[in-house]
Amino acid sequence: MTRTIVASATREIVIGFDQPFCVIGERINPTGRKKLAAEMMEGNFDTVKKDALEQAAAGATMLDVNAGVTAVDPNATEPGLLVQTLEIVQNLVDLPLSIDSSVTAAIEAALKVAKGRPLVNSVTGEEEKLEAILPLVKKYNVPVVAISNDETGISMDPDVRFAVAKKIVERCADHGIPAHDVVVDPLVMPIGALGDAGRQVFALLRRLREELKVNTTCGLSNISFGLPHRHGINAAFIPMVIGAGMTSAIMNPCRPQEMEAVRGANVLAGTDRDCTTWIKTYKDYKPGAHVAPAPVAVVAQSADGMASAGNGGRRRGGRDARRATPG
Amino acid sequence: MTRTIVASATREIVIGFDQPFCVIGERINPTGRKKLAAEMMEGNFDTVKKDALEQAAAGATMLDVNAGVTAVDPNATEPGLLVQTLEIVQNLVDLPLSIDSSVTAAIEAALKVAKGRPLVNSVTGEEEKLEAILPLVKKYNVPVVAISNDETGISMDPDVRFAVAKKIVERCADHGIPAHDVVVDPLVMPIGALGDAGRQVFALLRRLREELKVNTTCGLSNISFGLPHRHGINAAFIPMVIGAGMTSAIMNPCRPQEMEAVRGANVLAGTDRDCTTWIKTYKDYKPGAHVAPAPVAVVAQSADGMASAGNGGRRRGGRDARRATPG
Repeated sequence: MTRTIVASATREIVIGFDQPFCVIGERINPTGRKKLAAEMMEGNFDTVKKDALEQAAAGATMLDVNAGVTAVDPNATEPGLLVQTLEIVQNLVDLPLSIDSSVTAAIEAALKVAKGRPLVNSVTGEEEKLEAILPLVKKYNVPVVAISNDETGISMDPDVRFAVAKKIVERCADHGIPAHDVVVDPLVMPIGALGDAGRQVFALLRRLREELKVNTTCGLSNISFGLPHRHGINAAFIPMVIGAGMTSAIMNPCRPQEMEAVRGANVLAGTDRDCTTWIKTYKDYKPGAHVAPAPVAVVAQSADGMASAGNGGRRRGGRDARRATPG
Repeated sequence: MTRTIVASATREIVIGFDQPFCVIGERINPTGRKKLAAEMMEGNFDTVKKDALEQAAAGATMLDVNAGVTAVDPNATEPGLLVQTLEIVQNLVDLPLSIDSSVTAAIEAALKVAKGRPLVNSVTGEEEKLEAILPLVKKYNVPVVAISNDETGISMDPDVRFAVAKKIVERCADHGIPAHDVVVDPLVMPIGALGDAGRQVFALLRRLREELKVNTTCGLSNISFGLPHRHGINAAFIPMVIGAGMTSAIMNPCRPQEMEAVRGANVLAGTDRDCTTWIKTYKDYKPGAHVAPAPVAVVAQSADGMASAGNGGRRRGGRDARRATPG
């Protein structure tokens, strides 16, 4: 059974086929958010904190942390800013984090200070990336997101994307990184531009699960790019990818329609045992009403995120989960 | 390619893996609707007419017609009442119909007056049922819903349910009824009572598609029986069954959340070409607003149901489609 273990200082989460879908909150990312980028560069982390708390309250399983503000020299500025952002977030909410950067030095700086067992986001099939990132992933014994593109870009042929994913998993093995610590992103295309985008992903997810036996993720909202009422497309896409074997996604947990789709699909996939989380969340549901947020998973406080429902996948303890050797 | 053809007097619909999901409107059914049953017994069909028009407007692909009012002697009363109901509906809306009765004489009476090519709902694996229904299905050259239970009841073992479905398909072949005219209902259990109900159905759907090559249907809302916020569970279930290969469902098309899930899954499964129906339906969508109903598919008027989006599966013409020999 494929089990990818991530952890904050005190909380461990398992990403796996028999686990509730892992929702990786995408909000802490200045890409395309000029105001947030400006704030972060000024040392103002109010929005970062707000986004961290809101995503935790909305039921995120873990949080992605990106500090990629556009800068003249990202190699000089991003490591410090990512470390600062990561420390603020991990001191505020008790959720495992995903360290998201295209700057290798920033990833390494963040790995040095991260508590628990963070996820590295990401490596690709590009030689330069593989050689830069995989030694760090091995050194810090953390899992990594593997995006299935390489020097030739993103192939429109899903067989090529599968081959790139396979190459990355093999290269990880060469570095001593087990397949269960590789979370493959098969790359989701906008369905409005490529009518086959859905079927491509569903087929790829099955192959990744059955042939490579890896966990998977994606930038979920890509699928609906350019279409009206994107939340409706996203909310239909979520049960379909979960049914096809996807085990996590980088998405916005503050969208009730998408989170309802995640919770419903967890019930139907059998990972919300006895429908515990569903019943707890919706027992007083009134049509048209928003669901009251769950208690915030703040540091050193009991947390009650969506993925915790009676699955036994979460343990609590003070040990450094980063050194865990998942079976 | 499995193609089940159903038709009203002038409209033909294809149920198939490459077609938009076929929504069979469930509303015209007095089971559990005491007021409707009383009306129908009094010869008052106002609610029947209203339900027919509303379901057509909401985007139903076809309509189920059931006249099973509780009576002292259903064999005496139901044939006449079903014929009356069917004629009212088929003179009001131009959608293919499903003739739904447990009384063989009622099914035959309805088949005699039905326009186009109706669907017979249903036969089971019970010997008596097979011998009563299959000769009618053959005689009138119509498709039939095959429910996978038999004299022993509904098995909790999905392998047994598959075996019953296989037996029915084989018995149909003995009667000269091709597999593409058998629409199997694998039977959906409430997930609140049986945590494995979702996974059972998904696995069954794949086998029915790959091994028996048949179209499939189900009573969709069974899945959420007993749970709070049932529409949310139904709306997650729809994309998952479509992803697993289900091609139709008996459901309530007047529920916007469920219909949005159908339309979204059609986009993602590639059966809403160029997202035409999605864009048409949601281009002016405002969060929280209900979508304006589509034009009603009334008799002798241009219809614009959900399943019509650029799939080529629908043809218009005055011929009697019942005699069609689908390829």
